[in-house]
Amino acid sequence: MANDAVLIAVGDELLSGTGKEANCAWLATRLTSLGWKVLSIQIVPDSEEVLSQILGSWLGKTDIIVISGGLGPTHDDRTREALSRLLESPLVRRDDHYERILSRYEGDIKIVLQESAKKQAMVPACAEALYNPQGSALGIRAEKKGTRLYAFPGVPWEFQSLAERELLSDLTPSGKLQRVIRVVGWPESRLKTKIEPVLEDETLSVSILPSPNCVALSFFGFPEAVEEALRKVKDLLPEDILPEGADSLAEAVFMEALKRKTRIGLAESCSGGLVGAALTEIPGVSEVFAGSAVCYGNEAKISLLGVSPATLEEHGAVSEECAREMAEGALRIFKVPFSLAVTGIAGPGGARPGKPVGTVCFALCSPEGLSTWTRKFHGDRAGVRRWTVAFGLEKLWRELRGT
Amino acid sequence: MANDAVLIAVGDELLSGTGKEANCAWLATRLTSLGWKVLSIQIVPDSEEVLSQILGSWLGKTDIIVISGGLGPTHDDRTREALSRLLESPLVRRDDHYERILSRYEGDIKIVLQESAKKQAMVPACAEALYNPQGSALGIRAEKKGTRLYAFPGVPWEFQSLAERELLSDLTPSGKLQRVIRVVGWPESRLKTKIEPVLEDETLSVSILPSPNCVALSFFGFPEAVEEALRKVKDLLPEDILPEGADSLAEAVFMEALKRKTRIGLAESCSGGLVGAALTEIPGVSEVFAGSAVCYGNEAKISLLGVSPATLEEHGAVSEECAREMAEGALRIFKVPFSLAVTGIAGPGGARPGKPVGTVCFALCSPEGLSTWTRKFHGDRAGVRRWTVAFGLEKLWRELRGT
Repeated sequence: MANDAVLIAVGDELLSGTGKEANCAWLATRLTSLGWKVLSIQIVPDSEEVLSQILGSWLGKTDIIVISGGLGPTHDDRTREALSRLLESPLVRRDDHYERILSRYEGDIKIVLQESAKKQAMVPACAEALYNPQGSALGIRAEKKGTRLYAFPGVPWEFQSLAERELLSDLTPSGKLQRVIRVVGWPESRLKTKIEPVLEDETLSVSILPSPNCVALSFFGFPEAVEEALRKVKDLLPEDILPEGADSLAEAVFMEALKRKTRIGLAESCSGGLVGAALTEIPGVSEVFAGSAVCYGNEAKISLLGVSPATLEEHGAVSEECAREMAEGALRIFKVPFSLAVTGIAGPGGARPGKPVGTVCFALCSPEGLSTWTRKFHGDRAGVRRWTVAFGLEKLWRELRGT
Repeated sequence: MANDAVLIAVGDELLSGTGKEANCAWLATRLTSLGWKVLSIQIVPDSEEVLSQILGSWLGKTDIIVISGGLGPTHDDRTREALSRLLESPLVRRDDHYERILSRYEGDIKIVLQESAKKQAMVPACAEALYNPQGSALGIRAEKKGTRLYAFPGVPWEFQSLAERELLSDLTPSGKLQRVIRVVGWPESRLKTKIEPVLEDETLSVSILPSPNCVALSFFGFPEAVEEALRKVKDLLPEDILPEGADSLAEAVFMEALKRKTRIGLAESCSGGLVGAALTEIPGVSEVFAGSAVCYGNEAKISLLGVSPATLEEHGAVSEECAREMAEGALRIFKVPFSLAVTGIAGPGGARPGKPVGTVCFALCSPEGLSTWTRKFHGDRAGVRRWTVAFGLEKLWRELRGT
């Protein structure tokens, strides 16, 4: 055992395809970045017997086991019982912790949660109860045969906040580390060829994780080797790397706009609000973001953004001409120096002669002037919309940066 | 064993968080819809030893095992070797099948693939080689102790096409089926108490999957029992079930608005465009959705939506008064009969005396009049925003339905 972890997600719904496992996948990333090694991720049914058997098979063979889910108030939540069986320790009520949770609620919900205490306040006698700041199920920590066991609720934000507080903040690093940099505007295969020399260092493990318009390069190894690789990549791609601290294009836009002390307005059609939603994920973005005029229909483009009916008639809503008038409208209504407009065909319907599904037009207004682009994205409706957001944010970022 | 399946994904990158497991999740959905039961989904490293050991532990305990990945040409592709060890059967070259694959390629790629034959054409002597119509790795089928083993390449489209051709088309359906219904506005624990009588049927397996403001109930069993359970739940909760065909609150809003032949406009502050983004996930939504005025700053609320500066001064931007003027503004600028406005404090900053983080105000205008609500949601910024969208869409759906 050398910083080894085993992750287990509990839930029939994860095995039937009704729900998607995401907690273990998220935790695997976080653990790896801290230099830990994940030996196995397993999804198992809501069964006390199966879970306690699998837990038993890993005891003494891994440093930690993390269980996601099965801590709710319903009959099919069996994680507490499985742990009790494994630890040979009866379930006892931990009202001290549960009262603290109850004190956050009032009215009907409080009465229901008081009922749930019969299940949700139970923890094996030899284990530790973990206060849950975001939900009503207690987390659990225990130890057996040198393996530390953690059980966190399966609701993603509850799982993540408990994992951060109770597990990740405690871990001893291995000496190795993981660093990620994000490259904008390069397709994965071309990027691979470009950074070939960096991939040659065999002490490094390099992962390439593409997302729309932005590829994350992850380097895992000893600090000097990782730093050396980062330096080389930055030299090879000086214009295309998101600044440190920016985990997304939206954050890079935010940071650049803050630096320039300027403000942004949007006009969105096919993205339906997604560009605004991406920017407003960031706390404090109101400093730089005024708003977005989501004008899905032509009437709204005319009345709200002042797009001229003649432009719509002559060029259609999916045209650089329309995008330009939308961007100019956004400047005017939000009274800002920078604006981005997007209008396109996300599909599956809506194709026009010469304008297949996936065609999206962009316009960007800034104190330096106006730029427009037309792109044809591949993929389904959701894919085209994701690319639309990512491409628009890239252009906005580059314009703000002046590169 | 009664139509049981075990799914295994092989790959270090799936354990480090660099790649995301999707093949097993996809296959689980397909198998469940055919009445099969998935006992376990496990992600394991690129290790011949670990894989053959795990395979061995399931032999005779499940009808089928499906392995995704580890069939490529590189040194870390170990699935063939693991199967050879498990089956105690040496690897032999199956050039008959591999030649058929090679014949599809030409030029440089063909030369590279001829090289790869040394690995990719190898199959345990006692197993069957499966022609891959989309890539260069052969699939493998074998049998031991009554368990059928399948190995398919991990590239998603190769995996899916081989699974459809070689596995799913062969399976005998079990006669069982899965149906899902979605209940709006009930916390999981209260819902569970309410539908207690339905949970008593022991021939049914019931999963409860909560998401913000909407709980999915999944029933798996024989058709009559499933239909009976659905009927009972609908009787117990006549007002709160999404219509058939609606997989989300946004789809339910869309369907109801279509039925009423009406149109909707939005005014969003803290949700930053997410309500519009949720509605515009739906193809064809332009029939009923005019647009959204995302007004993040107060200036935009005043200039675009006509919120009065006195209201902002007296009550603040997070108030039912402001929400009301935003909703009225949306009616006016989008020229629609229905509008929803949301304004709140998503956090982590922005709390005011009497208005903690998570406070969100809603207003809804319809031909029947105006309604407003204030809610306090729990969770982090993303959680508050998810709840805001879900609560707003619920109110919009109920208003459109007139219940």
